[in-house]
Amino acid sequence: MMKNLDFPRCIKVADLGCSSGQNTFLAMSEIVNTINALCKEWNKNPPEIDCCLNDLPSNDFNTTFKFITSFNKKLTREGSCFVSAVPYSFYSRLFSRKSLHLVHSVYSIHFLSKVPEGLEKNKMSVYITSSSPLSEYKAYLNQFQKDFTTFLRMRSEEMVSNGRMVLTLIGRKTLDDPLYRDCCHFWTLLSESLHDLVLEGIVSASKVSSFKMPFYDPSKEEVTDLIRKENSFKINDLDTHGFDLGHSVEDCSLQSYGVKAGQKEASCIRAVTERMLIAHFGDDINIDTLFNKYALRVSQHASCRIKTSVSLVVSLIRK
Amino acid sequence: MMKNLDFPRCIKVADLGCSSGQNTFLAMSEIVNTINALCKEWNKNPPEIDCCLNDLPSNDFNTTFKFITSFNKKLTREGSCFVSAVPYSFYSRLFSRKSLHLVHSVYSIHFLSKVPEGLEKNKMSVYITSSSPLSEYKAYLNQFQKDFTTFLRMRSEEMVSNGRMVLTLIGRKTLDDPLYRDCCHFWTLLSESLHDLVLEGIVSASKVSSFKMPFYDPSKEEVTDLIRKENSFKINDLDTHGFDLGHSVEDCSLQSYGVKAGQKEASCIRAVTERMLIAHFGDDINIDTLFNKYALRVSQHASCRIKTSVSLVVSLIRK
Repeated sequence: MMKNLDFPRCIKVADLGCSSGQNTFLAMSEIVNTINALCKEWNKNPPEIDCCLNDLPSNDFNTTFKFITSFNKKLTREGSCFVSAVPYSFYSRLFSRKSLHLVHSVYSIHFLSKVPEGLEKNKMSVYITSSSPLSEYKAYLNQFQKDFTTFLRMRSEEMVSNGRMVLTLIGRKTLDDPLYRDCCHFWTLLSESLHDLVLEGIVSASKVSSFKMPFYDPSKEEVTDLIRKENSFKINDLDTHGFDLGHSVEDCSLQSYGVKAGQKEASCIRAVTERMLIAHFGDDINIDTLFNKYALRVSQHASCRIKTSVSLVVSLIRK
Repeated sequence: MMKNLDFPRCIKVADLGCSSGQNTFLAMSEIVNTINALCKEWNKNPPEIDCCLNDLPSNDFNTTFKFITSFNKKLTREGSCFVSAVPYSFYSRLFSRKSLHLVHSVYSIHFLSKVPEGLEKNKMSVYITSSSPLSEYKAYLNQFQKDFTTFLRMRSEEMVSNGRMVLTLIGRKTLDDPLYRDCCHFWTLLSESLHDLVLEGIVSASKVSSFKMPFYDPSKEEVTDLIRKENSFKINDLDTHGFDLGHSVEDCSLQSYGVKAGQKEASCIRAVTERMLIAHFGDDINIDTLFNKYALRVSQHASCRIKTSVSLVVSLIRK
């Protein structure tokens, strides 16, 4: 990219859906240090780098900003680096025209701008399952098509020609049945955990049946098709990787494996759903109880090896 | 400015020391609407505007971001406007080279980067008073000279040629005695209120004597001199305005005037000092008690009409 862009004096990099905490700085320090190393290799002056951290206005940017000092320490000495926070939905314009050189987004764009309409038939699950009607899959796919196309169009306006975009999102392995999600799918487990609370009389069944995830896990083919149709970006690379919320690295031979894996996955899913759950259920729900149920259900499924979820990593070049 | 800059397609505006809350958006909506109106008048397309809100990383940007929606509603329809937060001290570089068109800062740059050294002799006051040794004035002036020169140099690197900067800060009326501060000066009243707490045994005298404000109220001449010496900016205008923390607009004939004025000034001073006071005094201090004392002392001085503090408003053009 640096060579194609003729080593610009200022580079604007964005992390879209950066969330709070220090994860965004792990990515940013890798990007900044790589750019600096490339400039050294090509004997060019290192550029000034604008690191733009984006998430919704309700994101906790104050917590993110606490890690700026340690971020600066991780950087190699060359060049200057300016961090800023950009508080909007990435389904709208975020930056001025033709200003962005590199866009990076990890585990964000599988979240839709809203829950699609027409999901009234399936009352048992917060997301598509093997028993969902086909219309539910179509409603989700339709919303993803709209949102992802908007995302690409907004970025195409903001990016310079030859700019790069690397997106990592949750996708699904292509199977004949678009409704099929494995028994240990994280939303299936969340649905079951919510129904545990219904059975115990803690939340009402109607409140659970009206809760749906604004999420879609596209197949590689669906993503490729939308990028081609929108037509602003060339696909440089599209990879799929296994996805199991990080507990495959644990030692499965340990007796405690199932319990630990359950707690780990529960805390991951809690991190991305807690706000949505509280917004929907209000004070009716005890989040600790819900995710204790969730952890227990994961541990019952820890040996599930036929997973449908994958990580899709797409590398794009602005035409 | 718009004419001199040949109506650029994208304009980057910064509010330095924006603090939390919605005040920054009052200024930004005025700026954006003025730019849009000027473009209309000259029959030019309105530019995209980057509104960069700067303050220290410890500032509460989350609260500021809650007002973005109402900010957007205040804007005239033309053009796009992108808000971002830039979490650094403005005594360092904040933006990439030659990117800024307009800088705005209100009641921020009278705050120094640190308390100057050499203030050990005056134990009774948090700031310069008429009884301070001359060395104390020199220590403060010296720190302001360093800080303000740094501020100008950093901005000169960031701004485009012909870019504008408008700074509003607390200054003082030029008098023969650089030590003279009036009896109802806000820091004099804070010193007295702290000593009330010492007399009541609530805080220790040594803790109060080691607390000093990182603040300097320069004269018009001192500001002019530093801008000329730094040499990156041309002075377009420099005005002084009366400064009395907003209570001159109250109806002085009312019996309750003194009390109301006291509460108003106490809450203004509390807003800008509370964090510093807690950082220095820790749990020893009861902020409510301190500012009740402060309000009482203001009401005793509400008729003080020979005020030394003024607002300095400086309009600068990047050479």
